[in-house]
Amino acid sequence: MNLQVIRNVRPLGGSACDVVLEQGVIKAMMPAGTAAPGIDCLIDGQGQLLLPALVDSHVHFDKTLWGTPWRANTAGSTRNERIANEQGVLGNFAVAIADRAGPLIEHCIAKGSLYFRCHVDAQTVWGLRHIEAMLELRQKYASLIDMQLVTFPQGGMLIQPGTTDLMRAALDRGVDIVGGIDPATLDRDPIRHLETLFDLATGYGRGIDIHLHEPGELGRWQIERIADMTRACGLTGRVMISHAYSLGAFPPHDLLALADRLAELDISIMTCVLHQAALPVAMLRSRGVNVCSGSDGIRDAWSPSGNGDMLARASLLALRSDWNRDQDLAMAFDIVTAGGAHALGLTRYGLAAGCQANLVLLPAENLAEAVVNHSQQRTVISRGKIVARDGVYLGH
Amino acid sequence: MNLQVIRNVRPLGGSACDVVLEQGVIKAMMPAGTAAPGIDCLIDGQGQLLLPALVDSHVHFDKTLWGTPWRANTAGSTRNERIANEQGVLGNFAVAIADRAGPLIEHCIAKGSLYFRCHVDAQTVWGLRHIEAMLELRQKYASLIDMQLVTFPQGGMLIQPGTTDLMRAALDRGVDIVGGIDPATLDRDPIRHLETLFDLATGYGRGIDIHLHEPGELGRWQIERIADMTRACGLTGRVMISHAYSLGAFPPHDLLALADRLAELDISIMTCVLHQAALPVAMLRSRGVNVCSGSDGIRDAWSPSGNGDMLARASLLALRSDWNRDQDLAMAFDIVTAGGAHALGLTRYGLAAGCQANLVLLPAENLAEAVVNHSQQRTVISRGKIVARDGVYLGH
Repeated sequence: MNLQVIRNVRPLGGSACDVVLEQGVIKAMMPAGTAAPGIDCLIDGQGQLLLPALVDSHVHFDKTLWGTPWRANTAGSTRNERIANEQGVLGNFAVAIADRAGPLIEHCIAKGSLYFRCHVDAQTVWGLRHIEAMLELRQKYASLIDMQLVTFPQGGMLIQPGTTDLMRAALDRGVDIVGGIDPATLDRDPIRHLETLFDLATGYGRGIDIHLHEPGELGRWQIERIADMTRACGLTGRVMISHAYSLGAFPPHDLLALADRLAELDISIMTCVLHQAALPVAMLRSRGVNVCSGSDGIRDAWSPSGNGDMLARASLLALRSDWNRDQDLAMAFDIVTAGGAHALGLTRYGLAAGCQANLVLLPAENLAEAVVNHSQQRTVISRGKIVARDGVYLGH
Repeated sequence: MNLQVIRNVRPLGGSACDVVLEQGVIKAMMPAGTAAPGIDCLIDGQGQLLLPALVDSHVHFDKTLWGTPWRANTAGSTRNERIANEQGVLGNFAVAIADRAGPLIEHCIAKGSLYFRCHVDAQTVWGLRHIEAMLELRQKYASLIDMQLVTFPQGGMLIQPGTTDLMRAALDRGVDIVGGIDPATLDRDPIRHLETLFDLATGYGRGIDIHLHEPGELGRWQIERIADMTRACGLTGRVMISHAYSLGAFPPHDLLALADRLAELDISIMTCVLHQAALPVAMLRSRGVNVCSGSDGIRDAWSPSGNGDMLARASLLALRSDWNRDQDLAMAFDIVTAGGAHALGLTRYGLAAGCQANLVLLPAENLAEAVVNHSQQRTVISRGKIVARDGVYLGH
């Protein structure tokens, strides 16, 4: 039967358990010390916390400069200047995407993330290069991680002829999600932009994920339009709005009706926490809106920052939101785990019999301390196999 | 002569140097490999970065619960609720201040901070208890760190009869700085509050450090009054405003004249980066205002967050400010080093002959990467002696 057991761990800080695994899946959880002594012991947790693997719901692996020598940032301050700068930086970069993104994926695995949604540039300036590289990397790491790919028109869609063809080609090759970006300020034709995305999504039977940096009333207006089309196309539960900065521009009580629409249509909101007015995350959650988080860019031409640590991101969310109570720190944790799993439509996710044995062990008294301290002494288990210890990737 | 040498380090990421020390002071810096081979080698830096020790310009060691079992936060959301909650939590806390604050000081040393300004509660509810405990701890660690103490009326000053007597008693015992807090919203008598502080400061020949959480126009008005009194009392260069949240409430261009006043009077602004609208740090610096940063509370009754890592704080400042260029990351570093040193009036600070040999070595290509990665593999040298390796305090 190939049973294995993780002994003496405390799921989410609860009572000590033994966790029996079978073929990479959680088979049973029982009080510590009660699993049959004969079962092969994968690891003695020594009372550490047991967490489900972290979910990075928004990352740009294909853009990273990870592992290459430091490159002073040359981007301007506007989005369009950053897009142009990146085209210059990545256009002829000496190190292949696989040799940058691959090591970064391994770094993120070592931090405990085993589920990703990766936005992949669909830009005519480099054709299918980014898409093919990420499809290959997804295949390379398929035994360890689940990675959704989004075809993402970074440089604009309608304003860059040929981009929608590229997006179709990406979807034909197995990219999962239709991506969009700033329909009003980049493409400058918001309704046609959204109609194009929703046509692609319904045509291919896929979900949608839209980068929405647009500010204030303009951004809020577009969220309403995304909701309109989500309803009209029957895409409830299949749409994510990434960043949604405009939700930080209003007092939370002015957004209650919009939050209720998002909840009803199960449109997820992805926030990377920093860079802008904080989103009213607690209000959104209280109205039933699903919220998730991601690393965004990690050491790329946009910014040299980022560390791929979703538990540190939960801590940032708590700091930024002035969350101090245990239940609020648990909410931050939920956003980088269950919130991501819901947004990505993951099945067999969590700490229960039947779930994938995708797990993190780390020292902490409880879940709140796990968030605050985000200890780097993590043991990461993917599908029943130890893939990282003390934050170091063990290879595969 | 008891010379020692640190071989092969790159000061702030520059060319590799040998650094000759004599009796805890930097005696000379010369190209790597050129220090006389006979000098006792303190450490071979192997090309690591050499940084001046970090400056934590605002910390509350006396409040911490560090090292004690996790305590779920019970504070309300307002400042006054948090003050009342803290009085309940700390009033009869089973572990003595020295046994909480001492280990936290050692933790902060291991992160590379060797200069501190610590606000110490002057509250009638506990008399001199916090003040005496921190005076003893300062003595205990005097061979390793420089620690300024502020007599800080956390619970209000005018509204708590006896508090100014307690503050005088603290200053009589050797506390360095006169502290204030929210003159309008806590004491509800802003001019009398400020007059009391400035009277104490001029009477004792000390500086002033005021917690100013007050919002918007009210906070801005008080900053103007602090500037008025700084000028009137001849305290140029001796006043710090901590937090100064109101500076985040206005477009930077509306604050230029106020910034110029702050610069002229050399009033330092201390920001902990998170929790509120970001301060216009780049504008303040460009007008000549000195900016520093601090840890604020670390795992206390106000918040369970905080890690005492000022290099991580610099990274947060960069993230929060969307600083990506090398010169901006260097500015973030400057704020947690030279900015703090200026605010605290430190002498013999820095990487030059005659400065205290208070140093941090860590692996990074350059200063920008040191901020972004804030590696935990730090070697900390206090007055020529290695006091921490790999982020672990070695005792004293």
